[in-house]
Amino acid sequence: MTDVHVVGTGLLGTSLGLALVRAGHDVTLEDAVPTHAALARDLGAGRLPGPGEPSGPDLVVVAAPPDVTAGCVLDALRRWPQAVVTDVASVKGVVLRALEASGVDLARYCGSHPMAGRERSGAVAGRADLFDGRAWVLTPTTATARSATDLVATVARAAGAAVRELDPASHDAAVAVVSHLPQLASSLVAARLASLDDDAVALAGQGLRDVTRIAASDPHLWTQILAGNARAVREVLSGLADDLDRVLEALAALEDGGDVPGARGTLAAAVAAGNAGQARLPGKHGATPTAYTTVRVLLPDEPGQLGRLFADIGEIGTNVEEFHLDHGLGQQLGLAEVDVVPAAAAGLVHALADRGWRIHG
Amino acid sequence: MTDVHVVGTGLLGTSLGLALVRAGHDVTLEDAVPTHAALARDLGAGRLPGPGEPSGPDLVVVAAPPDVTAGCVLDALRRWPQAVVTDVASVKGVVLRALEASGVDLARYCGSHPMAGRERSGAVAGRADLFDGRAWVLTPTTATARSATDLVATVARAAGAAVRELDPASHDAAVAVVSHLPQLASSLVAARLASLDDDAVALAGQGLRDVTRIAASDPHLWTQILAGNARAVREVLSGLADDLDRVLEALAALEDGGDVPGARGTLAAAVAAGNAGQARLPGKHGATPTAYTTVRVLLPDEPGQLGRLFADIGEIGTNVEEFHLDHGLGQQLGLAEVDVVPAAAAGLVHALADRGWRIHG
Repeated sequence: MTDVHVVGTGLLGTSLGLALVRAGHDVTLEDAVPTHAALARDLGAGRLPGPGEPSGPDLVVVAAPPDVTAGCVLDALRRWPQAVVTDVASVKGVVLRALEASGVDLARYCGSHPMAGRERSGAVAGRADLFDGRAWVLTPTTATARSATDLVATVARAAGAAVRELDPASHDAAVAVVSHLPQLASSLVAARLASLDDDAVALAGQGLRDVTRIAASDPHLWTQILAGNARAVREVLSGLADDLDRVLEALAALEDGGDVPGARGTLAAAVAAGNAGQARLPGKHGATPTAYTTVRVLLPDEPGQLGRLFADIGEIGTNVEEFHLDHGLGQQLGLAEVDVVPAAAAGLVHALADRGWRIHG
Repeated sequence: MTDVHVVGTGLLGTSLGLALVRAGHDVTLEDAVPTHAALARDLGAGRLPGPGEPSGPDLVVVAAPPDVTAGCVLDALRRWPQAVVTDVASVKGVVLRALEASGVDLARYCGSHPMAGRERSGAVAGRADLFDGRAWVLTPTTATARSATDLVATVARAAGAAVRELDPASHDAAVAVVSHLPQLASSLVAARLASLDDDAVALAGQGLRDVTRIAASDPHLWTQILAGNARAVREVLSGLADDLDRVLEALAALEDGGDVPGARGTLAAAVAAGNAGQARLPGKHGATPTAYTTVRVLLPDEPGQLGRLFADIGEIGTNVEEFHLDHGLGQQLGLAEVDVVPAAAAGLVHALADRGWRIHG
């Protein structure tokens, strides 16, 4: 068992505590605001350290806002001379530069970034399974001891994550595209709704809801993230701005029934380029954590069928990780998507088929 | 019962046929590509007309691509002199202008637009419940007979939709913001993924997946929609482009640790404006059609609990429209979200509470 001390009990710190307690580790909790740490404890994320505790944690995880992360890491390296220290800030270069500027020996430091989050923040939004099946990026440098990197990797896996290694610059360039760009796009689209009248808002469909879901994210946190990765974000955002200008030109050419040669081609190319990019994403729209396998069961869309299905699953003894019911499919059927751990999938399929359920490939 | 003839058996035409057959109406199917109509029939969306059929449909629904919609509507008005004719094109002004230019009497025509769609297209993507709980906008003009508008409204409701009326210009301005803008934003973000290396794509999380889901949409269809609403789309897109320029300036000012006064404020304002806009959307991230009410039940995260819950719901006799299981919540609990028709919600809550289930506000 690894003794882990978590500094900062917001969404990530609390979720990590919950996941590590679940995995049987001893977790102590600390926050600049003591009542926040107490709340995380009450939620089951760990215990508050007694006097003089933690005396010798194996790992200190700094889960503080990006702007104060480097200071907290330096503080942790000084307070616990034997401990490995990591942080979970969404930006790595800005933190590393501040640490290097301090001149401290960084052998015991390995930066990291779990690719998990929610549009909600704070301890109450914490989830024990926040990291399950998610990537957790480690960003060791040449100064980092291999043993430090290995310990952080061990704890990240204990939290349910899949560990990857990237250098800090590559990490920051990657998240600028896969995380910071979509956040800004979602915010900018949602901002156009502010002045819309209610009749128009009432027409909102699933597409707009999906695109703007993360627009509910915390402005204070995101200002720190975007400012901390300003160059990489600006570069990818400039590329999008150039594409946007081409689309605006094409739309202007097509106004009032105009049909300038090439204008429609520009619009089609923009949407087609989106097809190509979207197709690169793994998973079926990410609806299911990659850690789970989906078993699809066709069931009659009438009262009691779900009860019968789950009673059968209960008898079979398989635990359901996630579940979604999709109606329609053309015929009057519902499609139940039952997500289970991969090892349980084959057995569940056979047991359900034996009970007469129609399994949908 | 209303006799409905559907012209065009893609996603919308097929889904409408499925929904109306479900509601007991007689639906005949026609498509420029006969095999497409035959496929829709095989999926249960209606029947193929016999010789001389349909002789006198009450309503003809043109569900063709926007560019050919006006022509199909004119054709339908001529072929069936007694029938009311509507279309389901996503853009109304461009269709109406073409019809008016033809000089035909438009008393029997009422344009409409069901606010329902999928990122997949074609008859095989059709769903009987595609319109359930969705808005279906009718866009009658002063030329439209009230009886025509009423018939289209009746059929839209029979398909499960909630009917609204808007003038064509207001409709086009509204969908430019709630539909066409998010489509372009999603496509432009997804396009940035095309050149990304696999290590970076592997870091994609739920946020990017949500923002880019509709980037999988059909470029041909969307070119027609965007070109058909070019002015309104350009206007809202220009507003977004201006906001984007301000963000780019702020990022440039913050590069390499620079901290020009106001730059962070610009970033925070952009994200905060997104908060305000996103908050205007009805429903919890639109996960549930507005037609349903969600009952939240806390349940232990252990085998058999879902079976017990659904067995109880089965006994209670409430039909479950949608269901989602959300793990975590800090403690080792799962949160079951059971969506039922509003009228059934209160009774289900009490009956479940009586059986000892913890209902989560």
